[in-house]
Amino acid sequence: MRFDIITVLPNLLDSPFAHSILQRAQKKGLAEIHVHNLREYSSNKQKSVDDYPYGGGSGMVMQIEPFANCIEKLMAERDYDEIIYMTPDGKTLNQDIANAYSAKKNLMILCGHYKGIDQRIRDIYVTQEISVGDYVLSGGELPAAIVVDAVVRLLPGVLSDETSALSDSFQDGLLDAPIYTRPAEWRGHRVPDILLSGNEAKITAWRHEQQLQRTTERRPDLLDD
Amino acid sequence: MRFDIITVLPNLLDSPFAHSILQRAQKKGLAEIHVHNLREYSSNKQKSVDDYPYGGGSGMVMQIEPFANCIEKLMAERDYDEIIYMTPDGKTLNQDIANAYSAKKNLMILCGHYKGIDQRIRDIYVTQEISVGDYVLSGGELPAAIVVDAVVRLLPGVLSDETSALSDSFQDGLLDAPIYTRPAEWRGHRVPDILLSGNEAKITAWRHEQQLQRTTERRPDLLDD
Repeated sequence: MRFDIITVLPNLLDSPFAHSILQRAQKKGLAEIHVHNLREYSSNKQKSVDDYPYGGGSGMVMQIEPFANCIEKLMAERDYDEIIYMTPDGKTLNQDIANAYSAKKNLMILCGHYKGIDQRIRDIYVTQEISVGDYVLSGGELPAAIVVDAVVRLLPGVLSDETSALSDSFQDGLLDAPIYTRPAEWRGHRVPDILLSGNEAKITAWRHEQQLQRTTERRPDLLDD
Repeated sequence: MRFDIITVLPNLLDSPFAHSILQRAQKKGLAEIHVHNLREYSSNKQKSVDDYPYGGGSGMVMQIEPFANCIEKLMAERDYDEIIYMTPDGKTLNQDIANAYSAKKNLMILCGHYKGIDQRIRDIYVTQEISVGDYVLSGGELPAAIVVDAVVRLLPGVLSDETSALSDSFQDGLLDAPIYTRPAEWRGHRVPDILLSGNEAKITAWRHEQQLQRTTERRPDLLDD
């Protein structure tokens, strides 16, 4: 699977893509992540990519042309399943969307910065607008990294133990049960006896009960769906 | 404002904290971001920080002791307003929470990795559990960066133009209006005439109408609150 990310701050993404699961997935050849520097697609001498908003107001707006140049160059090279713009007014990312993306071949992700991008880029090129949550960030770079991370870990062969992703929160519509490891007792705080019992059926039942209880307490909305 | 982030992958956060607004906020002395390597607080020779889950199942669980050592060292140095654990089953981050955090002095953020952290760390130390959204990631590092970014940009003096944050999506409970910059026409796609009219009152009214329309179409739930 291939990701092409267009950003004015390509180096901001250096370290998130060079560690842990994303690093391993790239080394194994399971994911390719290409980060494109938007400034290289600016046609003016200053390599500027933004300008003042029409109608006034604070903040700078990213211009059409550099994005158009980069997007059209990439589109000439291969077909993209989706061209995604990261924006707080997009559809909120969830595990279903991550699952759907993990079945795609080529995703292009546009990162806004400053006040956002010229609306015409969204109208002409973008096929999906995605938000990582109801909060405002400095740019679309961290959200793009979130999408890549959420998707890549679902690709077959990326996690060492595939059941590890299947048992995550949300994959069965429930939050995870509490987890514990050694020591069994720490400053008087003990692991629940049931987990030390060795009774697999009882442990499975307890965990499911804990999942339901935690979901009911914390996220009753997940049970409505 | 000070952030202390505890993680098993401190270098994953190098580049997000070294660019753009987060870099400038630190240079200006408005934000301090300290990243602590959890492995340095492990007391065994291998510097391991995880172990198998009690009761079986896939994935490794992060142990109590390294977190306890690091948290208690930091707590001895200063008071923390909150000790936050980034977890998909936490309270979902939103702009209200970011606003509230921006009024705090010291925040500690714990990043889980692998399958998560021993429940007793959550029971004993954590004061708030925060999720950035309903999806599963490789670890709490990108979510921690999201929290820091969302909060730091709200600190007075961080953005060059303070109205820039005030006019963001969510700050008035509405999504942003479409924005445009030069050129006024690009391959036949024109900026709406109203934005070129110079009539400030009409532009303000048009933008508010666009905000309402976009919010009604995309996020009617925001209008219910």
